[in-house]
Amino acid sequence: MVKASIITIGDELLIGQVIDTNSAYISQGLSRIGIPVIRRVAVGDNKEAIQKALDDEMKHAGIILLTGGLGPTGDDITKPCLCEYFHGTLVVNKTVLESVRYRFETVLKRPMGERNARQAEVPDVCEVILNQVGTAPGMIFKKDGRIIISMPGVPHEMMNMLDNSVLPMLDGVNTSTIKHRTLLLMGAGESLIADLLSGFEASLPGDVSLAYLPDQMQLRLRLTAINTNDNALDLLFREMASLVKDYLVTMEDERIEQVIGKMLRQVNKDIAIAESCTGGFISQMFTSVPGSSAYFKGSVVSYSNDLKIQLLGVRQDSIVAHGAVSEQVAREMAEGIRKNFGTDYALAVSGIMGPGGGSEEKPVGTVFMAVSSTAGTEVRKMNLHYSRPLNIRATALLVLNLLRKHILQNS
Amino acid sequence: MVKASIITIGDELLIGQVIDTNSAYISQGLSRIGIPVIRRVAVGDNKEAIQKALDDEMKHAGIILLTGGLGPTGDDITKPCLCEYFHGTLVVNKTVLESVRYRFETVLKRPMGERNARQAEVPDVCEVILNQVGTAPGMIFKKDGRIIISMPGVPHEMMNMLDNSVLPMLDGVNTSTIKHRTLLLMGAGESLIADLLSGFEASLPGDVSLAYLPDQMQLRLRLTAINTNDNALDLLFREMASLVKDYLVTMEDERIEQVIGKMLRQVNKDIAIAESCTGGFISQMFTSVPGSSAYFKGSVVSYSNDLKIQLLGVRQDSIVAHGAVSEQVAREMAEGIRKNFGTDYALAVSGIMGPGGGSEEKPVGTVFMAVSSTAGTEVRKMNLHYSRPLNIRATALLVLNLLRKHILQNS
Repeated sequence: MVKASIITIGDELLIGQVIDTNSAYISQGLSRIGIPVIRRVAVGDNKEAIQKALDDEMKHAGIILLTGGLGPTGDDITKPCLCEYFHGTLVVNKTVLESVRYRFETVLKRPMGERNARQAEVPDVCEVILNQVGTAPGMIFKKDGRIIISMPGVPHEMMNMLDNSVLPMLDGVNTSTIKHRTLLLMGAGESLIADLLSGFEASLPGDVSLAYLPDQMQLRLRLTAINTNDNALDLLFREMASLVKDYLVTMEDERIEQVIGKMLRQVNKDIAIAESCTGGFISQMFTSVPGSSAYFKGSVVSYSNDLKIQLLGVRQDSIVAHGAVSEQVAREMAEGIRKNFGTDYALAVSGIMGPGGGSEEKPVGTVFMAVSSTAGTEVRKMNLHYSRPLNIRATALLVLNLLRKHILQNS
Repeated sequence: MVKASIITIGDELLIGQVIDTNSAYISQGLSRIGIPVIRRVAVGDNKEAIQKALDDEMKHAGIILLTGGLGPTGDDITKPCLCEYFHGTLVVNKTVLESVRYRFETVLKRPMGERNARQAEVPDVCEVILNQVGTAPGMIFKKDGRIIISMPGVPHEMMNMLDNSVLPMLDGVNTSTIKHRTLLLMGAGESLIADLLSGFEASLPGDVSLAYLPDQMQLRLRLTAINTNDNALDLLFREMASLVKDYLVTMEDERIEQVIGKMLRQVNKDIAIAESCTGGFISQMFTSVPGSSAYFKGSVVSYSNDLKIQLLGVRQDSIVAHGAVSEQVAREMAEGIRKNFGTDYALAVSGIMGPGGGSEEKPVGTVFMAVSSTAGTEVRKMNLHYSRPLNIRATALLVLNLLRKHILQNS
């Protein structure tokens, strides 16, 4: 089986100025067409480091995908570096030149500068891949039976080139298949689940492996099988799911907001959201799902108490008596937005996410979350102990799981 | 100067199931205390791969930080693998055992299982680092003058351990200094800026380098200096900023929502946001900034036309005559929320983010954005060509830049 390595290039990766999302995207794509990735390496904009990484990865990988360092500026050295490594000469490629000219003159409607024109210079020992959404072309090199492909580092340019050119070209390289089945659990820790699955795990056939993927408030379990048929894998997967059914959110590799979207579509109900401390984060999760307008009616982010009273019908008395962060106010927010927006379901959260704003009685991390429907209103109090962004994310995940259970129990 | 490598461990990294945020966080931390990262490597849960990565990185790095594979389940093999590599034996560490017991019995209030107790087994050839927010301890090994530190892979556990134990321990290892100065530009491409800076770049002293960090709708420029004094670097940084001043958003390494937050605090004004197609994304950007409650009053996410009319005062006639995605409706949304929420500024966006919902007249990517204040209301139309999540992000960035300019021109 042909294996792949990924080399990402850029000083920004080594000082942590950007998060490398390209590697995950490339890995997913290769995994889909049955090419396992065995290593990912990030190096700086440095000739020796790039060439050493190529030497190293060519020892164990048949396919090497590189991203980064193809831009038009002085710190972009990947192209001359690859040209030297593969003993080529930089020459102007007319097709690339026309493509860059088209992009400037027709799409961007500004003249193509000399610096842009130089993007059409490519090593004479490679095949080029046209960039449909940018100016830096991709390059394909072949050496010692290895395929080396260099793509731009700007994420949307890389994604477009990978999906439209690179993966179609590599599809079929491996005839063996790698299959994954992933499920999502909430409400149980890794140890508890491992105890529930210890017998199951010990009985797995040699070509099937189980992985635990813990994340904040969530645990994914993934079965991976090489050359196993779908039926056999599905049987194991269903057995595993039944062993952890009390915590099971979904048997697809999907996010909880997608699960809830499907549930709401199925019962043809809609929802509104009242957010305070999460500041739009929950709404943004809901609406990140294509087609969410079918069930998501809208939301109010009410940082101020005025807005809680004016738009959500929270009673001034309740805020005075209990404070904005209280069971009573969370309840009134959920019931108020459900009534005002005329939806079947409503969510509300009110809390203190930090770093400031805590008190002795209500420390940072105190949050009340409410779910309301015709079946009634449920409110929960949680005490979180993360940083601000992680408190916000944890709150969103917990209230979505509360909603999921509420829908299940009442439909 | 002592250099570092980062090794992240986990099959989930190689199939792209999770995005590696740990490496960036670690790199930032090391960079702050003057330890440059020269390589980052990701390998699977595989003994040979982990040990080979250690062999490789020990050749050129004095400090090696590992994350991942320390959990209590069968696929977590980092601990036995390191134990073998450093010729140790697993023994129960009483301090770790007490710490795990405390975490279960006092913090989580459930019994400590046998599987959890096993987390207290550590190689007898390492120093342990207690995990203050989880159960897997960190481990410090020393060999051939190298320091090798293994940390958990769960992001918030790793962050806590890095910040509270690892960085304080490593601080002072290097006396030489690496300094960065970063500025953020919007509204100009990499080539245009490179042309503006070509003379400046050519005149830089040998110990100062310039990097271009392009991102969607944004371009960061970073000057890096080794052992240069602050004054000399600041002088160069200000010269660079003045050359690109027409596109300059900030001279700090910060996000545009932080820039706007500072501007609003400075003029003591507040803001409300009406979002349609961005579904809460802009609100969430605003509120991700600690202390944003000082200037962010609230927002409405109005997916439905009813809500645009009911909460924002958009006229039914305008929707009928122009459609919800129109200059007129975006204008009325901004003016309506500013009036209803009683704020100094307001933003509004209405558009079609895809993949569905486009028409010949208004294709996917059509978006209207409006900024309103006492100085008047500005509306812009944009045509975006990304995927749904990137269209949403681009819209948010563009309307924030429109707001930034509006505040600058009218205060």
